[in-house]
Amino acid sequence: MVVQRLDAPDPGEFVAAAKHAFRDGAVLTVQARCEVEYEGRTSGYLDEGDRLLVAKPDGTFLVHQPTGHKPVNWMPGGGTVEARESEGDAVLLARRTNPSERVETRLLEVYGVTRFDAEDGATYEESGTEAEMHEYIQNNPGELEDGLRIVEHERETKYGFVDFYAVDSDGTPVVVEVKRIQATLNHFDQLKRYVDLYSETNEDVRGMLVAPSASERVLRTLRDNDLEFVELAEFGLDAKGATEAKLTDF
Amino acid sequence: MVVQRLDAPDPGEFVAAAKHAFRDGAVLTVQARCEVEYEGRTSGYLDEGDRLLVAKPDGTFLVHQPTGHKPVNWMPGGGTVEARESEGDAVLLARRTNPSERVETRLLEVYGVTRFDAEDGATYEESGTEAEMHEYIQNNPGELEDGLRIVEHERETKYGFVDFYAVDSDGTPVVVEVKRIQATLNHFDQLKRYVDLYSETNEDVRGMLVAPSASERVLRTLRDNDLEFVELAEFGLDAKGATEAKLTDF
Repeated sequence: MVVQRLDAPDPGEFVAAAKHAFRDGAVLTVQARCEVEYEGRTSGYLDEGDRLLVAKPDGTFLVHQPTGHKPVNWMPGGGTVEARESEGDAVLLARRTNPSERVETRLLEVYGVTRFDAEDGATYEESGTEAEMHEYIQNNPGELEDGLRIVEHERETKYGFVDFYAVDSDGTPVVVEVKRIQATLNHFDQLKRYVDLYSETNEDVRGMLVAPSASERVLRTLRDNDLEFVELAEFGLDAKGATEAKLTDF
Repeated sequence: MVVQRLDAPDPGEFVAAAKHAFRDGAVLTVQARCEVEYEGRTSGYLDEGDRLLVAKPDGTFLVHQPTGHKPVNWMPGGGTVEARESEGDAVLLARRTNPSERVETRLLEVYGVTRFDAEDGATYEESGTEAEMHEYIQNNPGELEDGLRIVEHERETKYGFVDFYAVDSDGTPVVVEVKRIQATLNHFDQLKRYVDLYSETNEDVRGMLVAPSASERVLRTLRDNDLEFVELAEFGLDAKGATEAKLTDF
């Protein structure tokens, strides 16, 4: 089971569940009313309130208030997180050495706790901007299809901006959506929305998704909806350094 | 009810629950296998894996992998988070304008989702270091108690460092634990541990917690355990600027 949950555990149940999760390398998420103190380079105190607590198997510990993207307190990976009972409350202590710091959270009421045996081997892949790819297409529309002619770059519609509005060698309009990363179903959704909009005035309109690559699922979904895919492999993520060198050559 | 949970919802159930949570201003936490894409200053793609997603009512959106303290993708408050269905999957779209960016997460499998109606009016209060307070006590032990004499600063024990090891005017040893913030039960725990250790060799040993303030609960717990509290209000958090000015006067 990937996820296991306890509703409103008492301190003893909570501490037992947390210890198991830490031992097994699971991610622990806790909704609780708690107070927090920090000791390290400075000292700090957060009076009681409802917060989301996250403990990861690498020792990461996060205290999130209901607003704001930054945790109000946190500890990076490399240290330890321990659970214990004290004076009738559950306590989570995250600490590390070098520098020596600790975040100690007293859970006055645990509303819920979720153990998550998460598996994730993926790495975030960042690429350049779509602007570089737009510039290339603007200057080389024939790379997408022989005889394709760009009519307008970034045409505004009620659903947002269409990247390119073009016509093919037969004079049929083509809506072109450009993505700098591997094509996903979200990109399909977006292209479909634009094409449906243009179909209202010209039912022959074609839709073309341009990206460095696409999965089989995306290719199939495009085909099933009479939409086209054009691969611009030069902008692929695999050859990031090489691509960047190439870009200056265009 | 503060917390409501769904186990392994299907995409339709998930989207309905998310919409309700967003409408009501609740914090949403999701355990899911998902893929993520970012578009803004750059473009990026994170292939599928198990992640913790957090959506807050201010528009904050966080994607956390099982390790690391930084979210792999995120959006600050100020924008919007929307839930919808697409091609049989649930999708969460977080976006903002100025700068224009979006994080779109396709949830290939939702293991669990928790809605958290959190109330939190507290603000994190940071104070200076304990070192400043230590220096003051070292130079003015009589401020803690008439006739108190410091024997040793930061004496090492098997449970960590005792802040001050002192003797009172009768020659009775006093273990002094100093905190720069309002005293908490965690501080009580720490002092109790040290005093219990010293009691093994001298059962008359006294324990003294020194802090800018303490709640009634902490004061009562100290009393019930024959431990003492000394308030050093000059180091209080309320008058932060004033305290800092004073510190230089010591």
